[in-house]
Amino acid sequence: MLMSNLIQSVVLIGAGNVAWHLGMALKKKKIDFLQVLGRTIEPVKELAGILNADYTLDFEKINVNADLYIISVSDDAIVEIIKKLYLQGQLVVHTAGSIPMSVFKGRFENYGVFYPLQTFTKGHEVHFDKVPVCLEANDQDNMNILVQLAGLISQTVLFMNSEKRAKLHLAAVFACNFTNHMYSIANRILKKEQIDFSILHPLIIETALKATGMNPAEAQTGPAVRKNRMRMDKQMKMLENDPAIREIYEILSDNIRNYLANEL
Amino acid sequence: MLMSNLIQSVVLIGAGNVAWHLGMALKKKKIDFLQVLGRTIEPVKELAGILNADYTLDFEKINVNADLYIISVSDDAIVEIIKKLYLQGQLVVHTAGSIPMSVFKGRFENYGVFYPLQTFTKGHEVHFDKVPVCLEANDQDNMNILVQLAGLISQTVLFMNSEKRAKLHLAAVFACNFTNHMYSIANRILKKEQIDFSILHPLIIETALKATGMNPAEAQTGPAVRKNRMRMDKQMKMLENDPAIREIYEILSDNIRNYLANEL
Repeated sequence: MLMSNLIQSVVLIGAGNVAWHLGMALKKKKIDFLQVLGRTIEPVKELAGILNADYTLDFEKINVNADLYIISVSDDAIVEIIKKLYLQGQLVVHTAGSIPMSVFKGRFENYGVFYPLQTFTKGHEVHFDKVPVCLEANDQDNMNILVQLAGLISQTVLFMNSEKRAKLHLAAVFACNFTNHMYSIANRILKKEQIDFSILHPLIIETALKATGMNPAEAQTGPAVRKNRMRMDKQMKMLENDPAIREIYEILSDNIRNYLANEL
Repeated sequence: MLMSNLIQSVVLIGAGNVAWHLGMALKKKKIDFLQVLGRTIEPVKELAGILNADYTLDFEKINVNADLYIISVSDDAIVEIIKKLYLQGQLVVHTAGSIPMSVFKGRFENYGVFYPLQTFTKGHEVHFDKVPVCLEANDQDNMNILVQLAGLISQTVLFMNSEKRAKLHLAAVFACNFTNHMYSIANRILKKEQIDFSILHPLIIETALKATGMNPAEAQTGPAVRKNRMRMDKQMKMLENDPAIREIYEILSDNIRNYLANEL
């Protein structure tokens, strides 16, 4: 591997949660951020300050001297940005789980995907070395470059094609977004009783830890597993003033029963 | 508080996950287990061995010399056990979140509830000192006794009446059982792609940790929040061979949108 294959300078397009954390992780590994480009001035300016980079909102003023262009914006915005972006053969990647690499095809020579599988929130520190990074590239040379870059910040670097990555992203929606919504519903139930949500923290952490140590289907407990119809009816009754949540309760309970009956 | 108010000896009725962990935690604090009573011989014998206690399956052979009788069995079985249990004024508790204390009324003189809010699995160690214990008792003297006992093993001891405890238990079903089912569904999606579930471990842990540091509704991210209809349609399409999971996907996505629109 020649030194010239290593990424040394980056232009970062986007200043949201993923851009923020990825930028900080790469900066710590001495990657040079030339510029942050984005739609709204405050987050762009703030992230550029942290990364010691220039910034602009104007695609015509893009710095053309970087080795790599990272597009880290919402799914909808990626296609818009590709239309506005003119490069002379430099490598470009996006960071979206559910957008196929083919969005770059015919538009750029060197491209790929750099998808860090984690939930990021600005200001909430994440240990990037534990974050799986799923890579895809248009050819083996670019893959090698991305593998080296990802290896700087993560211990878990994988190749994954777009189709498989989309499925992984779907699984992540269940494991993260929908899980978090379960926490929100629990919080809502407790709020009505003036019980502080923190009482559930040890349970939430333990439930997550258990899933990392055993098959989650085998870890399942609770009324639906034990086919405790009486308790389920009582709990449904407690939700009678909240039909949407009651529907979720019923559908999930039924699905747990069917799942355990058919798959274990 | 007189020394005579302290619990020194216990008969444990039940040998399931909660009985197992509660027994072990109390045993470590020098509580003397006289007997384990249960329905099936193997787990009863095994737990009795660990607790250095006698054991029996026969309620007529119950040891009548204990200070406290802990009924730690499935909800359905509690009422059956109460019918078979004859005490002379000794204190009796159950450990169920969703069963009211009133099941004891008219049957015993001294009774209460000792509800540890955690998910327990035999063989999987739990740090009991972090487990909230929700107490209820028929009078103040018995409450004092239970507070002291709970204080031996947990840093978080709360008084909670039966109605409130039932709501807490309902919240726990969402935060634990339904959350775990989200992990199961994610696992199922990954299995079809031959992706190892462990790739989601960092995400699962981080999602749980985030919920302990901020309001889960504010932590929410993902396609439903960003009203990303296009991505949602694509993800629903990926689930077209699994209508039950697709229905869950749709209902939860809709609920997240409505929830965030109305409550934040």
